[in-house]
Amino acid sequence: MDDRPATPLLDRIHEPADLRGLTDAELVQVADELRAETISAVSQTGGHLGAGLGVVELTVALHAVFETPRDRLIWDVSHQTYPHKILTGRRDRIRTLRQKDGLSGFTKRSESVYDPFGAAHSSTSISAALGFATARDLGGRPDPRLGDAIAVIGDGAMSAGMAFEAMNNAGHMKKRLFVVLNDNEMSIAPPVGAMSSYLSRLYAGAPFQEFKAAAKGAVSLLPQPLQQGARRAKDLIKHITIGGTLFEELGFDYIGPLDGHDLDQLLPVLRTVRARATGPMLLHVITRKGKGYAPAEEAADRGHATSKFDVITGKQKKSPSNAPSYTSVFAKALIREAADDPRICAVTAAMPDGTGLNLFAERHASRCFDVGIAEQHGVTFAAGLAAGGMRPFCAIYSTFLQRGYDQVVHDVALQRLPVRFAIDRAGLVGADGATHAGAFDIAFLSNLPGFTVMAASDEAELVHMVATAAAHDDGPIAFRFPRGEGTGVDLPERGVPLEIGKGRILREGSGVAILCLGTRMVEVLQAHEALAARGIVPTVADARFAKPLDREMILQLARDHDALITVEEGAVGGFGSHVAQLLADEGVFDDGLVFRSMVLPDTFIDQADPRDMYAVAGLNAEDIEAKVLSVMGVARLNKRA
Amino acid sequence: MDDRPATPLLDRIHEPADLRGLTDAELVQVADELRAETISAVSQTGGHLGAGLGVVELTVALHAVFETPRDRLIWDVSHQTYPHKILTGRRDRIRTLRQKDGLSGFTKRSESVYDPFGAAHSSTSISAALGFATARDLGGRPDPRLGDAIAVIGDGAMSAGMAFEAMNNAGHMKKRLFVVLNDNEMSIAPPVGAMSSYLSRLYAGAPFQEFKAAAKGAVSLLPQPLQQGARRAKDLIKHITIGGTLFEELGFDYIGPLDGHDLDQLLPVLRTVRARATGPMLLHVITRKGKGYAPAEEAADRGHATSKFDVITGKQKKSPSNAPSYTSVFAKALIREAADDPRICAVTAAMPDGTGLNLFAERHASRCFDVGIAEQHGVTFAAGLAAGGMRPFCAIYSTFLQRGYDQVVHDVALQRLPVRFAIDRAGLVGADGATHAGAFDIAFLSNLPGFTVMAASDEAELVHMVATAAAHDDGPIAFRFPRGEGTGVDLPERGVPLEIGKGRILREGSGVAILCLGTRMVEVLQAHEALAARGIVPTVADARFAKPLDREMILQLARDHDALITVEEGAVGGFGSHVAQLLADEGVFDDGLVFRSMVLPDTFIDQADPRDMYAVAGLNAEDIEAKVLSVMGVARLNKRA
Repeated sequence: MDDRPATPLLDRIHEPADLRGLTDAELVQVADELRAETISAVSQTGGHLGAGLGVVELTVALHAVFETPRDRLIWDVSHQTYPHKILTGRRDRIRTLRQKDGLSGFTKRSESVYDPFGAAHSSTSISAALGFATARDLGGRPDPRLGDAIAVIGDGAMSAGMAFEAMNNAGHMKKRLFVVLNDNEMSIAPPVGAMSSYLSRLYAGAPFQEFKAAAKGAVSLLPQPLQQGARRAKDLIKHITIGGTLFEELGFDYIGPLDGHDLDQLLPVLRTVRARATGPMLLHVITRKGKGYAPAEEAADRGHATSKFDVITGKQKKSPSNAPSYTSVFAKALIREAADDPRICAVTAAMPDGTGLNLFAERHASRCFDVGIAEQHGVTFAAGLAAGGMRPFCAIYSTFLQRGYDQVVHDVALQRLPVRFAIDRAGLVGADGATHAGAFDIAFLSNLPGFTVMAASDEAELVHMVATAAAHDDGPIAFRFPRGEGTGVDLPERGVPLEIGKGRILREGSGVAILCLGTRMVEVLQAHEALAARGIVPTVADARFAKPLDREMILQLARDHDALITVEEGAVGGFGSHVAQLLADEGVFDDGLVFRSMVLPDTFIDQADPRDMYAVAGLNAEDIEAKVLSVMGVARLNKRA
Repeated sequence: MDDRPATPLLDRIHEPADLRGLTDAELVQVADELRAETISAVSQTGGHLGAGLGVVELTVALHAVFETPRDRLIWDVSHQTYPHKILTGRRDRIRTLRQKDGLSGFTKRSESVYDPFGAAHSSTSISAALGFATARDLGGRPDPRLGDAIAVIGDGAMSAGMAFEAMNNAGHMKKRLFVVLNDNEMSIAPPVGAMSSYLSRLYAGAPFQEFKAAAKGAVSLLPQPLQQGARRAKDLIKHITIGGTLFEELGFDYIGPLDGHDLDQLLPVLRTVRARATGPMLLHVITRKGKGYAPAEEAADRGHATSKFDVITGKQKKSPSNAPSYTSVFAKALIREAADDPRICAVTAAMPDGTGLNLFAERHASRCFDVGIAEQHGVTFAAGLAAGGMRPFCAIYSTFLQRGYDQVVHDVALQRLPVRFAIDRAGLVGADGATHAGAFDIAFLSNLPGFTVMAASDEAELVHMVATAAAHDDGPIAFRFPRGEGTGVDLPERGVPLEIGKGRILREGSGVAILCLGTRMVEVLQAHEALAARGIVPTVADARFAKPLDREMILQLARDHDALITVEEGAVGGFGSHVAQLLADEGVFDDGLVFRSMVLPDTFIDQADPRDMYAVAGLNAEDIEAKVLSVMGVARLNKRA
């Protein structure tokens, strides 16, 4: 039985409207209880802890002041919304977070009316909020169903090009719109009662212009350590907004910086801006990631993402790992290659830890570039590096590479530049769910002329593919690999470049050939074993390359077997489709080959254990086994005919 | 015989190095002759005129001061590079611009060492330049092959998110890097000799700090009309750069504004910054698009793009059009639908004219949104509009939709929002060449769950597809159509919504079925006619939908014919691949259907007349006819077996 915190006041909050009858002092207590409940829930589920703890007070204040769901509260990235979920009727399911059939780890329109816009990738909230504000105002008759639009966006997400585009456009359109900049880069001193209440009175009482002036001047009223942080913050942001004529001229008002953990500041300011704002307004709120939970506050990543943990000690309950992660295998292999080739360098878009490039940076600091949340720039920067004689590896998750797709096409592929793409999180990813699925990269890369596209079937193959990419100067090359641990195979000391466009036969058999691209190979081999036990021995081949195809091997497989099955962790349009195109062009279908292509299904698959997600997708060993048996039925019929 | 201008000095310039021995006065003459030559060339070829005329002096100055090609000059978008091409050894081919086997209308690495980075889509130059600068500096030993990196970017392109990301990153990296902001939004008075030469002496003589101060203060020295423009320009930009702490703190120095048509300003300033700059520097240059050619200067678009024209009168030689353009048919159909449905609105990313939304804006101004060069924001803004109850049409060229791909996936498709995508310039586009080909959209949209993807086979179909999209509330829907004129069919008064996922049979035949998606239908029908004359009558079907497929019709076609051929203006992975997946899943191949999928080939196709480009692609009537004959040979063999 778990020790849940006592939350007498929170227990009375069934929806945000219940907050609106409480006193400010009671709201402070709700926030405290909400923090405890968030910690308790995440200790059982794991997930994103630090970000949510940083916005507990902000969450309470926004829901207490604005009339959600009529007012549209849009959380950027939205991994900070566990407190929001607890307050918006989902408390009873909060301990199912990120689990199969449970709550999503992000906002989701289908989950709640309090989630007007789903997210997971960064920097989309201002664009969406502007869309809501514009929809409300169209025709001059505000739609009574729609109230305000409020985007809550972190300082990292704000620095992305997409957010800049949205701010630029929002300022130009001059619509009433709230952008809350949740700035947690700098630590601030604990709120001090006297100052807080002074500000509170100041904010609540003044006319709006004075109020704005006061809010701008308020820095001098803060105690020294807070002043410093706040001044730096203000310097940083005011030029994006009020002081930075670009936005000021276009109509953004700036209020801040506010202490995001002090409801005595947040509540009166939010009430005032809600009552009086006419155009776009930026509220600059300073918060501390992990706030209020010592183990998170003290962690280097401020408790960004965590496994299940013990609430008292903060100790995470990680399951012992059997094999190194694909990510670390990639990083080590790249470090090894870079030791011999000074042209090799690496580019990440704000994900050094997730991509393993933090390890690369430790060894080759001058050759590792974190460009920020800027996939568009990152890809073309890499193209420039390549044109300048370097050999850059762009390490980007499959789902985020979508952000740089035009740059991949226009700057890399068209110019046939030797940029190497290390595509992590390929395929289904587990707890992060559909928004993070790496489903489309095989398709959207494999039809680009001159591209080479590989997928590793295990971590030893990944090592060889890093070496292959390192040795490949004839145009762009990509290799994909999944989230999580490898299969436990022995790793080579050093990768050996693969022959471009050549696959390999792993099991010689007859009747049916299974041609697999990527790490479904584990499942294919399991299916092979189960079938062999029944006397059915299919051939198993590892395609290695989605492009160029191993034409010779594939046509030979087609000739020598009655049936050919392709398997991949990607959507239709990718590997299987290229194989089908080859078979059609070569007239193989004319003779009645039984062909099936096993791909991700035409549906977005919700979070679950990856194995469960692949069960939904029909790409586990038992599905492959069943497919072999079904085509054998057909193939036998063919022979009888 | 054409009347070419006399260009005695330009005739001596065979490469940029030849400029470096000339006096400043001679460079002024070179610029004048270069302008005349540019006008003369474009009068014969058509193309982008205004942008090139705006940078004649800048082009001369950059090549005269910097040591191209060792110094890397990177032109953003690069449609302004005709003068650059004339100076860099391509003058003898300048009258082949944008023609088959001629010079590209953009920079192109394979065309010249003076084109270190190709472009055509906007806002990539700073990222690329930073890549070159970083490659140069890596390891601390500058590569002697590499000199400076200079990006020349327009004010419109500078406002895109990608440019912001690059500036942000460049300032952070503090590398020596030149960004020339070519600001042609405002008109300026003609250069005035006294002021110019004063500035020239001032700039050339002062120590660097004084020089910078002088350059900043120089506005007060300009005559009144120029001062106004310059002040406004400076206000606008200084906050992005030196005044806007965001970049200043990160290390960008700002110089400007400079009169971009006054070599007496440009040359000394460029010499000074080249000699003394240490970090990233932004040079703000004010130019006038169309400068020096009255018909261009006086045109509303300042001679942005032109047909062949008469140099004396400026009158364009347009071939008479036979049918309305697809773009205008789309716009009129959308205007009609919007008259009945107040929820319909339209979004363009800085292309109101190109997409026809300028016409929509004339009728429904409050419902038309130009978000600027900001496809990422534009798509998610549309998603927000849709979530807020509107029914937005996003009108974006196929090639530029690549810029918003992640937003299409993450914000639109995942949330199943009713955003409608009007995809113009689908397929091969002619003079703009490979960079603008709309080759990948069928593939990258058709595997997104819940998406509906249509392609119009003629302009009447387009009218119906606009109506279909307008009526479709169940998730996102896209329809694609090509650049250029329609086929001349009668247009319906009003579109009638098509049944989702249903194709149509256009010609009943036997033996072979041709299943076409999109405007290759003209070619298919021509092939049909030619074959019919020989007694061969294939069935012809218009798929209309790439997704969802008309399963019933396709399976029926497969059952009733010996062979099935799909035809589309797109790369592999699209319509034909989805048909193949269906046929495989349904076991149709098991029985030996002859299947071929005609798609764009695995190569980037250079500019030419679209018909010539499609000849390269093998997608004209004669190719389709040949394919039918070839599969008939196979199909007959099958029957004999």
